[in-house]
Formats: sequence, structure tokens, C-alpha cells
Amino acid sequence: MRHPLRILKSLFLHRPTANPQRRGVCGAGMRLVQFHRHGEGGGIRVGVEQGEGLSVVDLKAFEPSMPSTMRELLELGDKGLECAQRALSSGQCVVERSDITLLSPVLAPEKVVCVGMNYRDHCLEQNAPIPKEPIIFSKFPSAITGPYDDIILPAESQEVDWEVELAFVIGRRGKHIKAEDALSYVAGFSVANDVSARDWQMKRNGKQWLLGKTFDSFCPLGPALVTTDAVRGESGREAGRGRDRKWKLKAV
Amino acid sequence: MRHPLRILKSLFLHRPTANPQRRGVCGAGMRLVQFHRHGEGGGIRVGVEQGEGLSVVDLKAFEPSMPSTMRELLELGDKGLECAQRALSSGQCVVERSDITLLSPVLAPEKVVCVGMNYRDHCLEQNAPIPKEPIIFSKFPSAITGPYDDIILPAESQEVDWEVELAFVIGRRGKHIKAEDALSYVAGFSVANDVSARDWQMKRNGKQWLLGKTFDSFCPLGPALVTTDAVRGESGREAGRGRDRKWKLKAV
Repeated sequence: MRHPLRILKSLFLHRPTANPQRRGVCGAGMRLVQFHRHGEGGGIRVGVEQGEGLSVVDLKAFEPSMPSTMRELLELGDKGLECAQRALSSGQCVVERSDITLLSPVLAPEKVVCVGMNYRDHCLEQNAPIPKEPIIFSKFPSAITGPYDDIILPAESQEVDWEVELAFVIGRRGKHIKAEDALSYVAGFSVANDVSARDWQMKRNGKQWLLGKTFDSFCPLGPALVTTDAVRGESGREAGRGRDRKWKLKAV
Repeated sequence: MRHPLRILKSLFLHRPTANPQRRGVCGAGMRLVQFHRHGEGGGIRVGVEQGEGLSVVDLKAFEPSMPSTMRELLELGDKGLECAQRALSSGQCVVERSDITLLSPVLAPEKVVCVGMNYRDHCLEQNAPIPKEPIIFSKFPSAITGPYDDIILPAESQEVDWEVELAFVIGRRGKHIKAEDALSYVAGFSVANDVSARDWQMKRNGKQWLLGKTFDSFCPLGPALVTTDAVRGESGREAGRGRDRKWKLKAV
């Protein structure tokens, strides 16, 4: 009954990276994660999955000069990604999945920008007209929760719903960006769950969607941030089309 | 033609302060500001105005252990405010207005939460029904600009409008807060300009207000954050009513 109908992007970095054409730098996509190790006080670490659901290379253990968070890693640009690639190739500093908890790959982004009614099926499902241009709404960053954390059902809502979404993590600032350049601003992709309190979204709050979309835990994210190198062929073009529309609209 | 019709609050601090009943700690309201001194590379400083439009006491110059930003100052709770009061009383470390540029008193808050259609006059002006409960919308923190900075008129809009607003700066986290306790969560008040691209707000983007409200520079803020001690009598109660409504609604 729910469809992956929207694209959610998170804009969270300030500094431009040295090389705008990051795609292809590392040759293959990596699955970057944030985690904490059990019994070590819960400090955030950044790592690279050896494969989906497999063990994780602890990046800072491999190279102590590397940062502990994804945001700081991405701020390093190619230097950070190249180090992550070396760490992955080394096969060293591996931690078992059973020893860690995976967190959201992005914490406290500046913005969580979402595109509503982005797919025909979802409009038909909701008996809503198919919009002529994307509908932009947002969640507060405080709604983000880890990929395996519980979603808190708020007592204030009787109609909590969910949709799987493709999330873009934006790696550097931009404005009035050409469609053909858009992908160079994307650090990677992840999976989001767009949880909604439909009663608050559609019937209350003057039909502004914000409140219904942004209860605590209403934006599970992750587990991995997959770097753009992983996107090839049709799926890449699909993703590109969705994002390009947003960039034009989001000229703010 | 524009009225101060909404209340805008910014939630931007993580840590609870030691004393939830901060009001009255310093005895009188202070006008806290952020500024940079001309010719010193533009670093942010936090200060206390000697009076509206008068010179500013540089807090860090008075007490080097004090932070350089408002957010860090407020995170110190009463300790920070008491030091600011001592700095103000000392009459030392004064910088002239002509030597500084005042910035927004808050930069990069976690949230900018706004209440729409909050006053009867504005609803009548816009031929809109008077809502039965507050309508919550948001601006991105990136829309915040300094009190004397230019507002950038976006080429994408032909209908830029503005409204003066009372802004609440929230000093600590809370949820499901009783109305009578709400003021203890407020660090202070400021003046905001809620700039709107009415065409984007009311006619485009599926009537979601976000895009029309959040173009760059659409949230001038400041100059001063006036601590809650300054609020007495009727105006304080008025402010309280508006905020209390929001707290109940914003139970997310």
C-alpha cells in the first residue's frame, strides 16, 4: 500500500570540496556507515561496510588522523573517500556487526528537504491530482533516527503511515545549479523512511504538512550512505531526473 | 499594511540549564548581541548593549573564559548571564557602534518554528478564515540574516512581502511542557522579519508555505536578544499566550 514515492535529500555540508566531479574518483561505490561499539560509551565512529550487512572497517582505527563522524569525513572531500577506500581494501581494523550498533549515516544535517507527490501511483492512491511541479516540504533534522531504532508512535496521532524513500545526501553548497552538474553536489545515497501522521498532515495544521511529518523518530535513515560511484545506468539516470527537478525548484 | 501577526521561535540549544526558573536571575533584562569588529577578520563576538542603539560591552574581552557566540553563552546557563551582567555593570571593554557590525543574535539554530495566521487582523487582510488552532510552518535556518543586512529579492518571485514578528529564542529542550512552565524554556526575545514570496507561498508548491518563506535572507533577526527578565506585565502575558499555544501544538 505504500510506495517509494519521494526523494529526500539532506543538505549538511558547508565547504566546497576540491574536486566537483567526485564521481568515479574511487572507482566503485562504498557503503559508509556511522556506528558505535558496544560497551565503549557510545561514541560515534565512521566506517566502511565490507558488503551489505557484513562487517565494518573502523576508519579511525585504520588511520587515526581520520575523523569520527560522516560529516567531517565528507568535508575532507576526495582525501577522506580515498582513505576510506584504502581502509576497505586493507581488510584491517574490522569490527563484527554483533559488536556494533549502526546509526543514521547523517546526524544533524542543516536541512531535510523532501519532494512530495513525486510518483504517479502515490497520487492515484491518495486521490490527489498529479502535480505539475514537485511539492517541496521538510522535516526537522530532529526527526532523524537510526535505521534499526524504534519509531515512536505519538499519542497525538491515530493515522501513522510510512513510505520508503531514496535519500540524497548533499555534499556541498550550491544554488542555481545546472541539471547536468547536479550529481557532482551529491555525496551519496541512502534509504529513508518517510513516516507521516496523516491526520496532522492532511486534516490539521492548516494542511501544512510539516507537523505531520516531523514528530520525533519520523525520519529513519540508513544504514549506509552509498557513494555516488555506485550509481550506474538506468537507476542513476532515474535518480538524476528526480534530483534535477528539485534543484531547479529549490532555487532559494 | 503588514502587521506583527506571528510568533517565531528558534530552538537551538541541547543542554538543559541548571536552573529552569531563569527568569529573574539577573534582576533586569539585558540586550545580548552578536557582532564583529571592523578590520579584525570578521570573527563573531558576543556582547551586551549598554542600551538600545548604544555601545556594546565585548564579553570575551571582559572575561576571556567566556565564549564568542551567543549559543555557547546560553549553553552556560545562569553562569553566562551573570557574567554578562557583571560585564555590563563594569562599564569596561566597551566598543563603539561605529566600530562593529551587529549580526543576527542567533546563528544556525536547530529549528525555526513559526506560527501562521496568529492574529485576527492578518486573517481579515488576507481574506483567510481565522484558524481554530495555530498553523505551524518553518523556515530553514539558512534564511536567517543580520538585522541590517540586505534582503535579497529573488528573481523567482514577483510578490515579496514582509511582516514584523516577535521571536522567541528557546534555551533548552522540552516536550509536553505545561503552559505555566513554558517561559522557563525561553532564553529571550528578539525581533524577526518574516519575509514571504507570496506567489510561492500561496499559489505554488502545492500551497505548502515552506518555499515561499525560506529564500535566502528571508528571516532577518535582531539586533538584540532581550533576556526574559525584561518582560513584565501585559506584554509578557501576551507573549506567553502565544507561546503556550505553540507548545501544546508542537508536541512532536
